[in-house]
Amino acid sequence: MSIIRCLINGEDKCEVPVSDRGLQYGHGVFETILYKSGNLQLWNKHMQRLRLGCERLEIDLPDTRTLYREAKKICDDDDKLILKIIITRGDSDKGYLPDKGAKSRRILYTTAYLQRYQTETPQGIDVALCQQKLTHNRKLAGIKHLNRLEQVLARTEWDGDQYDEGILTDLDDYLISGTMSNVFFVKDKTIITPDLSLCGVNGIVRELVLELAPELGFETNIRKIKLNEISTFREMFLTNSLIKICPIKSFNGRKFASPGRVTITLINRLINFLKER
Amino acid sequence: MSIIRCLINGEDKCEVPVSDRGLQYGHGVFETILYKSGNLQLWNKHMQRLRLGCERLEIDLPDTRTLYREAKKICDDDDKLILKIIITRGDSDKGYLPDKGAKSRRILYTTAYLQRYQTETPQGIDVALCQQKLTHNRKLAGIKHLNRLEQVLARTEWDGDQYDEGILTDLDDYLISGTMSNVFFVKDKTIITPDLSLCGVNGIVRELVLELAPELGFETNIRKIKLNEISTFREMFLTNSLIKICPIKSFNGRKFASPGRVTITLINRLINFLKER
Repeated sequence: MSIIRCLINGEDKCEVPVSDRGLQYGHGVFETILYKSGNLQLWNKHMQRLRLGCERLEIDLPDTRTLYREAKKICDDDDKLILKIIITRGDSDKGYLPDKGAKSRRILYTTAYLQRYQTETPQGIDVALCQQKLTHNRKLAGIKHLNRLEQVLARTEWDGDQYDEGILTDLDDYLISGTMSNVFFVKDKTIITPDLSLCGVNGIVRELVLELAPELGFETNIRKIKLNEISTFREMFLTNSLIKICPIKSFNGRKFASPGRVTITLINRLINFLKER
Repeated sequence: MSIIRCLINGEDKCEVPVSDRGLQYGHGVFETILYKSGNLQLWNKHMQRLRLGCERLEIDLPDTRTLYREAKKICDDDDKLILKIIITRGDSDKGYLPDKGAKSRRILYTTAYLQRYQTETPQGIDVALCQQKLTHNRKLAGIKHLNRLEQVLARTEWDGDQYDEGILTDLDDYLISGTMSNVFFVKDKTIITPDLSLCGVNGIVRELVLELAPELGFETNIRKIKLNEISTFREMFLTNSLIKICPIKSFNGRKFASPGRVTITLINRLINFLKER
């Protein structure tokens, strides 16, 4: 990973002490944000999730104005960048119990925007089911914490170009998400996405799709989805902060309308929504 | 945490790049080892677990002779220290998928031995059940990986001296372990400890107790243990690499013989075993 610029607690450096609880236990949260033409895309939504994550893990969220100022400082020389923000519980003292006096640590860094994030994949991508399962933890569900071994294990199940994303279920075989994306299905005029109250990350674009759908005349339905239901869906797409909305051509061989009409409508609405801001 | 000395890949420093996959995803494993009078206690067993953890997480384990040499280098000026070894998957490149070329990073550091690790607590300690549950993941079970938010959340359930350790069950309500220890029960002449094939950390002292028990005339039984079974046990104790074996006086108010005869026999045998080496 080529880091272009990094600030740690406002200082120009790119290393953290080994005592950091982010390294020691994964005690922290992160956000990956697209910076484009002077704009930190969907900043407020990213801050909302960061705030929720910090509350759940008892981390003091730094002033978001400070985060914004620091983010702009390391992005503003460029046109298009990926910004990652990591907030950890600061330094460890006595094992798992956090030291009340220890302050959170804020890490902001930029990397190059890569062509593979490009949203324009009109023909759609192929996805497959991972063996790795996601486990239930109500306190960790929805937030983007640093304990990501389930995703790492899932992602190492395939290599190269076999397929483009892996899809995970929970231990009860309900569909939850991709390794780095949320999933949606379309049935008639309804947009269906998995319930994430027990596991998974509540994506920023996922939330936005759920907000924009009603004004386009679609119903939304957040619920448990069994793997064997997918044959009843006409379209499937995934979302993520960098690639936004991406049509899915096939899932484990089952083919979908790609790009489906509903997916195209949502992609166009999202492009306009982001232009308006 | 006051780090006395730290080596990273053999270099005298105590910071890691933010790109390290240990920080990014918790993609690494660790060991906490007691150093005493020139001896890195139970070194081979620690290396065995480290090896298994590295295999499971597809991390190249550095040459253990290098680890030993570096460990001795930072310990040998002192009489009694805590040594922590962290091995991470090295630097991140493209998200969750590890970069084939990236080498693992070895982090070794020492901290002071604290009086609270002292094994001599003949009267035993009080423990209580945590709300937080442990989730099942066969690939992560047994090893000491860096995704420790479940333990962190469990440990934040109590503060100060209310009790001395929290005990966790899995989502099926089977007893698994303490936040930083393994648990054992005694019934007649049998030593019973939870099956850890789905979650929990396979402790070094746990393994040693299971090895030493038969020669003392005890049977061992590794199995699933329901919470409501504890009233049928006469003794309970916990194990961990620093405190070794510690009798438990009460668990959620249920009292045990403390210190029980079997527990005392095991403590004495362990003290002798460690002296013999």
